[in-house]
Amino acid sequence: LHRALSGEVALLLHTIFMRSISVLGSDKQIAKWIPLAMQYQLIGSYAQTELGHGTYLQGLETTAVFDIATQEFILNTPQISAMKWWPGDMGRSATHTVVFAQLYVRGKCYGVHPFIVQIRSLWDHSLCPGITAGDIGPKMSFEHIDNGYLMLQNVRVSRENMLSKFCEVQPDGTYVRRGSQQINYLTMTAVRVALISHEAVIPLMKACTIAIRYSVVRRQSKLKPGEEEAKILDFQTQQEKLLPHLAAAYAFHFINNYLQDLFNRGYEEIQRENFNMLPELHAFSSGFKAIVTQYCASAVEVCLRACGGHGYSSLSGLPSLCTRILASCIYEGENTVLFLQTARFLIKCFIAASAGHPVPPSVTYLAAVKPGKCPAKSKFDFLSPDVYTQAYQHAAVRLISSTAAKLQALIQSGVKKHDAWNECTVQLVQAVKAHCHYITVKNFAETVERLETKGGIQQIMKHLCHLFALHGIFSNTGVFLHDGHISGAQMDMVTASYLDLLAVIRKDAVPLVDAFDFTDKTLNSALGSYDGQVYQRLYEWAQKSPTNTQMNPAYEKYLKPLLHKKLSKL
Amino acid sequence: LHRALSGEVALLLHTIFMRSISVLGSDKQIAKWIPLAMQYQLIGSYAQTELGHGTYLQGLETTAVFDIATQEFILNTPQISAMKWWPGDMGRSATHTVVFAQLYVRGKCYGVHPFIVQIRSLWDHSLCPGITAGDIGPKMSFEHIDNGYLMLQNVRVSRENMLSKFCEVQPDGTYVRRGSQQINYLTMTAVRVALISHEAVIPLMKACTIAIRYSVVRRQSKLKPGEEEAKILDFQTQQEKLLPHLAAAYAFHFINNYLQDLFNRGYEEIQRENFNMLPELHAFSSGFKAIVTQYCASAVEVCLRACGGHGYSSLSGLPSLCTRILASCIYEGENTVLFLQTARFLIKCFIAASAGHPVPPSVTYLAAVKPGKCPAKSKFDFLSPDVYTQAYQHAAVRLISSTAAKLQALIQSGVKKHDAWNECTVQLVQAVKAHCHYITVKNFAETVERLETKGGIQQIMKHLCHLFALHGIFSNTGVFLHDGHISGAQMDMVTASYLDLLAVIRKDAVPLVDAFDFTDKTLNSALGSYDGQVYQRLYEWAQKSPTNTQMNPAYEKYLKPLLHKKLSKL
Repeated sequence: LHRALSGEVALLLHTIFMRSISVLGSDKQIAKWIPLAMQYQLIGSYAQTELGHGTYLQGLETTAVFDIATQEFILNTPQISAMKWWPGDMGRSATHTVVFAQLYVRGKCYGVHPFIVQIRSLWDHSLCPGITAGDIGPKMSFEHIDNGYLMLQNVRVSRENMLSKFCEVQPDGTYVRRGSQQINYLTMTAVRVALISHEAVIPLMKACTIAIRYSVVRRQSKLKPGEEEAKILDFQTQQEKLLPHLAAAYAFHFINNYLQDLFNRGYEEIQRENFNMLPELHAFSSGFKAIVTQYCASAVEVCLRACGGHGYSSLSGLPSLCTRILASCIYEGENTVLFLQTARFLIKCFIAASAGHPVPPSVTYLAAVKPGKCPAKSKFDFLSPDVYTQAYQHAAVRLISSTAAKLQALIQSGVKKHDAWNECTVQLVQAVKAHCHYITVKNFAETVERLETKGGIQQIMKHLCHLFALHGIFSNTGVFLHDGHISGAQMDMVTASYLDLLAVIRKDAVPLVDAFDFTDKTLNSALGSYDGQVYQRLYEWAQKSPTNTQMNPAYEKYLKPLLHKKLSKL
Repeated sequence: LHRALSGEVALLLHTIFMRSISVLGSDKQIAKWIPLAMQYQLIGSYAQTELGHGTYLQGLETTAVFDIATQEFILNTPQISAMKWWPGDMGRSATHTVVFAQLYVRGKCYGVHPFIVQIRSLWDHSLCPGITAGDIGPKMSFEHIDNGYLMLQNVRVSRENMLSKFCEVQPDGTYVRRGSQQINYLTMTAVRVALISHEAVIPLMKACTIAIRYSVVRRQSKLKPGEEEAKILDFQTQQEKLLPHLAAAYAFHFINNYLQDLFNRGYEEIQRENFNMLPELHAFSSGFKAIVTQYCASAVEVCLRACGGHGYSSLSGLPSLCTRILASCIYEGENTVLFLQTARFLIKCFIAASAGHPVPPSVTYLAAVKPGKCPAKSKFDFLSPDVYTQAYQHAAVRLISSTAAKLQALIQSGVKKHDAWNECTVQLVQAVKAHCHYITVKNFAETVERLETKGGIQQIMKHLCHLFALHGIFSNTGVFLHDGHISGAQMDMVTASYLDLLAVIRKDAVPLVDAFDFTDKTLNSALGSYDGQVYQRLYEWAQKSPTNTQMNPAYEKYLKPLLHKKLSKL
């Protein structure tokens, strides 16, 4: 029961329901609702997305009209595209949900606000009056998860049900705002930071563990004539598929710590009603949510494919990791939209920094536009955080400044601001990726520096940091070659150093995944178990398949008549 | 019945069984087995892959020992890793299969050969003596497909059951080979060419149709203040996600025609016992199978993600396209292994061409190593097949020649040949991709040239060809910048031309997918139907979900006691 109610399986949204109340509710609201939720006296959900509206919050169509006479809000779904669609646990389980709706008072729209709405009876679970709700049907990798739809017809909730830490409608209909309008984004910011680890980094760690363990068991083709077939992890191509992603798993683990710190500091400030850090917090959580989920989704897929056919077997544990992580690129903000939110922040900061105005410490580097060349003279020079961090910084500044220049030029040539922005978006996304990549490399290098007392581990982590950084350059050579910061000859040195590192890290690959310390049960993979008994386990698990305990149902129905009819003719 | 027996659903391997007999069997064998198979008097399968052995055919462990006394082959599975694993239709349906096994005559191993083996009774479908077989369990996106395992214990088949068009064991045990040893690869070559269209290009066309149609219905965010939310296909980022893949679908459709031609010519030659084209055929089918499936798999995933949350709904039709195509990167040859087979061919041809020896026409370009610079002076100059085809050719030659040089240098420095090869494999894969990319661009441009009588269509196809070519440069800038063939300033022109093309093709995007002419039924997608009634269809289809016709089973069991217990305490 505990697992069903609080684990991965179900009612995840209950937590988000509680978090949104904690963050957006008044002290009085927190005191009323949180204890009820904690004891499961109600089951919560979080209803933001609509059938026709996702990441663009302002576009939501659900309305909440304040009725001064009854001191209630009247909630409605004006048309089919306004139906709430996707909220977890809402289709079949939740009794309450936080509905985001356009607030109207005396005919004036005040934008999107959150309202606590009861949707099902606490006694018999029947739908409340005015509520239409159900399940939206099967989804990729979330086949059995309850995602719901919800329509509201003149559903009334009390004035106290609008979450009112930051804004409130007073009994006479006066609208009062406390703090920044962006505060509505705070729940999303918190969720985005939280999902980086759970939904992206940990799945990548699991996939690396399975694929690397399998790659030292599986043998294929001979490396040397006359010898036994080689372990596939001894092939350079297999190393190149898996080891950079192992390094990335560590890199993103550290960036997650960085973001948690940033969020905690920001949250403390907000508690003191100081909202200065909110734009930075929002920009960083958006950009890193996007880059980490995107990277991890494609890396997990590479791990699956690196296991050959057996990777596709559900018994490998990889298909579910793969399809599940793919969804993280969309939920809690579609990645392209998030990248562009970060882009807005970076362009603003770049313009401010260029004009000599103060900017948050994380982006002061934008003021330092240097046309310098990479000083490396041999492949060994690239095994230096100074050299590669500088290259990443240079690339990020170049991409942000050149896109800012294009944007300005378009506007000066008479193109309207929003059209100009649209014409720059492909390049803006590239610029944001370069920025996030730079911060990730820098943070990895600094984290490794701080490990200085632990010699052996620090050495291995240094190699991993080099690998992550050089893999990024090797995979995006154009970004660094474009203005000659790294020359073609230097790029050959990067390639040489990068390929050398693969062979170095190959030696520690198994201990590095063992260090993630997943149990066999957690991995649930015939390929990735600690003991390496891959083939035995595949055969044993396959025999348990229900398809092997019954006759093929198609035989009696189709095959037998067909085969017999022909036989009788012989 | 017909659909069940011959459609996508089942018994696909029956066709491959027949093809392998047609290609590898003697006239007598063809005359005996093909009519039986045609009339479904038996159900065939194709048993090559083993639990521990995939693409590396020589590594197969199953044995077939010739017993002169009885004129039979005795087939055995020597250990668990030698179990046949994955063959389609074998776990639950097939009565016969073509088993690939190491042939032994008088203790001497002659390598892998194909044998027709009966595995189930034609009368009651029970397993034959010495046969253990079953289903290998659920796989990603092929949950309900029968993939089987097979163990053989002293299974005897007649001497006539070894497929003997190209080699034969005579009654006295004399082994006779006719033609090249590579002939065993011919079935695989045929299968690889065939799957490019069915398993990769058509699914990509479907995914493009769904995503592009949805993108002109879905609106999100405002492009211009005060206006309605914009169609998402009017965002540059959305165009950049989808339109290059639409162009790629056409590019790969044309390359498929090119390969079919090559195969047909090669096959005619082989019928005349001329095996000269076999290496080229094998290299091209391997390389293109790998590059097309890899590209299409990632493009379909982009289409899914470009539909936001609704892309993940099974009702969109995209999840099944996405996971199914992913498997095509592994079956019929793991892509990296295939790339390296093509690499071997290209390196051989490069060395031959450099020495002035004749090479197949498709690779004569390798002899023409020119250090030339791209002549483009403005962004318009890049709208020329001559300019970009030349850039692709230059890049392919540079990558192949530099890797060949590295290989030679390693060997000259004393590294053993196989180690040197392994140390070059990451770069060899890049070189093969550049080669295939070049051939694809060149073939696209030439195909468009041949359309000259059809003015309007030719103009649109020209734009698509430009887009495909410039997208490839834009996405792999480093490959072209490395030695300065394209300069940084020229790359900015490529980017400008490329982004301009997106807006041009946006106008024709819907007709270009309508031209694929899929019916709504074939697409089976709530997002991609011709009439664009996305939201209505999603809601209607969702209501039919079985989860909406029954009470949540968890309610009675878990939720009700929980909610009631707490209520009673109040």
